[in-house]
Amino acid sequence: MLDDTQANPDPDSAAVVLLSGGLDSSTCLAIALERGFQVHAISFRYGQRNVSELERASTLASSMGAVSHRIIDIDLAQLGGSALVDTSIAVPKSDRVEDIAADIPVTYVPARNTIFLSYALAVAETCQSTDIFIGVNALDYSGYPDCRPSFIAAFEVMARLATKAGVGAESGAAESHGGSRKLRIHTPLIDLTKAQIIAEGLRLGVDYSHTLSCYDPVQSNNSDGQPCGHCDACLLRAKGFAANGISDPAI
Amino acid sequence: MLDDTQANPDPDSAAVVLLSGGLDSSTCLAIALERGFQVHAISFRYGQRNVSELERASTLASSMGAVSHRIIDIDLAQLGGSALVDTSIAVPKSDRVEDIAADIPVTYVPARNTIFLSYALAVAETCQSTDIFIGVNALDYSGYPDCRPSFIAAFEVMARLATKAGVGAESGAAESHGGSRKLRIHTPLIDLTKAQIIAEGLRLGVDYSHTLSCYDPVQSNNSDGQPCGHCDACLLRAKGFAANGISDPAI
Repeated sequence: MLDDTQANPDPDSAAVVLLSGGLDSSTCLAIALERGFQVHAISFRYGQRNVSELERASTLASSMGAVSHRIIDIDLAQLGGSALVDTSIAVPKSDRVEDIAADIPVTYVPARNTIFLSYALAVAETCQSTDIFIGVNALDYSGYPDCRPSFIAAFEVMARLATKAGVGAESGAAESHGGSRKLRIHTPLIDLTKAQIIAEGLRLGVDYSHTLSCYDPVQSNNSDGQPCGHCDACLLRAKGFAANGISDPAI
Repeated sequence: MLDDTQANPDPDSAAVVLLSGGLDSSTCLAIALERGFQVHAISFRYGQRNVSELERASTLASSMGAVSHRIIDIDLAQLGGSALVDTSIAVPKSDRVEDIAADIPVTYVPARNTIFLSYALAVAETCQSTDIFIGVNALDYSGYPDCRPSFIAAFEVMARLATKAGVGAESGAAESHGGSRKLRIHTPLIDLTKAQIIAEGLRLGVDYSHTLSCYDPVQSNNSDGQPCGHCDACLLRAKGFAANGISDPAI
């Protein structure tokens, strides 16, 4: 179900790509475009500390060739419970990647990917698309429950029943619609390390100088957010570029 | 999985109830309260024509005894595609309940219940709740894909994997947590007709005069929204009260 090797879509097939403006989702966008999809990119303004990433997302969507880019306002901040949206909880910082905690980090946002994928499903149904791309990967699902392959697989099953296209699937009728595609959640990065993701992005020409991965970027008058260099995201990113033998073009 | 007869919760167990301010969700709220839950009600302002229902929801949550009520702003309107949020699509009207179309109505909002339940999941995780109530019923799931029992069951499976509480469930570890409750999506109305829902609500003392079910209520200077009397929701509601031998107290 999570096999991501299916043949390319028909010309003009639409896909929805979740685009945060970070390294992973930008690579995911490049992969969706390479596979021939007309991409509708969506981003979320959800009270995150890192609002600069939304500007990066707009730049990337436009420069890489997405046919549309929506920024959807959602209010997760009122739910609290995560360092990414609750400024009373500190973002963990370190100089060493080995210090990243093995359990669920405080940067976890309750049900975030469930909500993000639900909006993606709504956009997909509106665009007559049956393909959604999300850039979750192995490094994430060690810590975030809603990045695990089992979660993605369960979401896909649910999503196929949730929409107009899914009506009739219960009785098997959907199978008999000649050539109709079933809804798929594509996770092309799921088994890749950060170094492998960067290598794939470089092959596809992703300009990583426009991406921002930091959980807690430094704002100043003459910049739109510089990476802190010490949060989990910054440490993993630095390690990934180092493994590819190059420096991070965003720093 | 959809069996809704489990024993009452421990004292002070929290539940999240989706409350639109209509007849079904108000009855669902009364059932959750009767079962002994501390109820956190949530409603959505999603660009619907029927904003008056949100005022009704606040009144009902307070008067019926919910411990909290959140109105969450979400922007489904920008997705378009439904008469409930897109004023360029007419709400179907008739004088006869027999005229209600058998296929998916234009009032269907893409992925609406998926998005609603995803927010409920986030609130549940924040409140340390493992119980979510939604008032879908048999009349709905003949037309709306995201009201079907198969959809609800699939959402429940996904939700158990999506949250911190679900970590470890893959390996069966969650089963061994002494006494921990698995996340449940309760659908106490799912097999009831509108007449049976009303009978249950009357037994529980729901004041239906405060509820509003209409898809397209009439706004005027001296009212906060009167039912149109001719949309699918109004026709089904009228039939339900008639079957109970009483007139609708909201008219």
